[in-house]
Amino acid sequence: MIRKEKLEELKSIIENLKTIEVIKRDIDQEDKFIQSDAYYFKLNNGITIPREKLTKGKDKKDGSAAIIMPIVGDEVLTVIEPRVFTELTVGIGFPAGYIENGEKARVGALRELKEETGYAPSDMIEMDSFYQDEGCSSALNRIYLALDCKKVSGQKLDKDEVVKYMLFKYDELFELERLGYIKGSNSKLALEKSKVYMKGR
Amino acid sequence: MIRKEKLEELKSIIENLKTIEVIKRDIDQEDKFIQSDAYYFKLNNGITIPREKLTKGKDKKDGSAAIIMPIVGDEVLTVIEPRVFTELTVGIGFPAGYIENGEKARVGALRELKEETGYAPSDMIEMDSFYQDEGCSSALNRIYLALDCKKVSGQKLDKDEVVKYMLFKYDELFELERLGYIKGSNSKLALEKSKVYMKGR
Repeated sequence: MIRKEKLEELKSIIENLKTIEVIKRDIDQEDKFIQSDAYYFKLNNGITIPREKLTKGKDKKDGSAAIIMPIVGDEVLTVIEPRVFTELTVGIGFPAGYIENGEKARVGALRELKEETGYAPSDMIEMDSFYQDEGCSSALNRIYLALDCKKVSGQKLDKDEVVKYMLFKYDELFELERLGYIKGSNSKLALEKSKVYMKGR
Repeated sequence: MIRKEKLEELKSIIENLKTIEVIKRDIDQEDKFIQSDAYYFKLNNGITIPREKLTKGKDKKDGSAAIIMPIVGDEVLTVIEPRVFTELTVGIGFPAGYIENGEKARVGALRELKEETGYAPSDMIEMDSFYQDEGCSSALNRIYLALDCKKVSGQKLDKDEVVKYMLFKYDELFELERLGYIKGSNSKLALEKSKVYMKGR
């Protein structure tokens, strides 16, 4: 069971971050974050198929992300963010972010963890990697377990980033998932894949 | 351990579906499969943030998909498809497809399973649902366990769809994942979430 005061704190953060109004925004195609490039792919069997590749950002990142499950003492650090396209309009999950072009995934993971929460680990284990949307993207996401994290600085958020963080017991995370608060594929896979690493901790 | 002849058959299908040439394709923005709409979101705390919502297809689907793990006798049905943006350029996983606008997820799941493989189940259990890319999409994917599937028709593929299928033992799927053949988030989450349902089968 999840601690009552923790659930109350989470609900109050969610309330704070909820979307209350949506305004359509006009933006030129070339300025959009989401873009795509179109190609034909000739297969070994002679068939040729068209596909589009999703890119993200002005520098056309492939969208690969690092997802980090940070262990802090005997708790796990989570982040709560506006997830404006979801039913709740707010999501809870693990710190995560896009890996920059040319950046090593591990370096991106440490950077994102520090930017979003101000925490840094003593060591980091890569638990798994997977394609996020293999039909139309080359985004290869990595999940890390970040051990023995300590608060080393404040948050360093991008202009339009809003990130709150909270500590939960490992078991409470599965309760948060069951209650529908943790609902993103990245955090869900991280939770599943962590089981073998967290056994006996 | 995976049966040797099964792995050979899989490798031969992969060889057949591999990308051997990529040709850039010129396409008007409005004809693209991948598009986005931009908005401002006003949050309860007074902050306003811009976000873009990914849409797929001419009818601007939100990209919600149904993923189906079909049980056939004592085996599980998998599909092998060109996944042109991945390292191997071919992926193995579970039958899956986009839910059409206005279509019930369950109906979409049955439709996609039949179209991709010609199989139909006696019953279907929803194992879980999750947001595929919660930062920039409202795609809510559902994972189903399709019980007692029987071959009822041929494949009915879209013009540019290339789908082969193969049966594997349940345990072999985890070996395929370990070997890096099953590498998509949807199929990986389906595998994880199936464990509780497949216990004792």
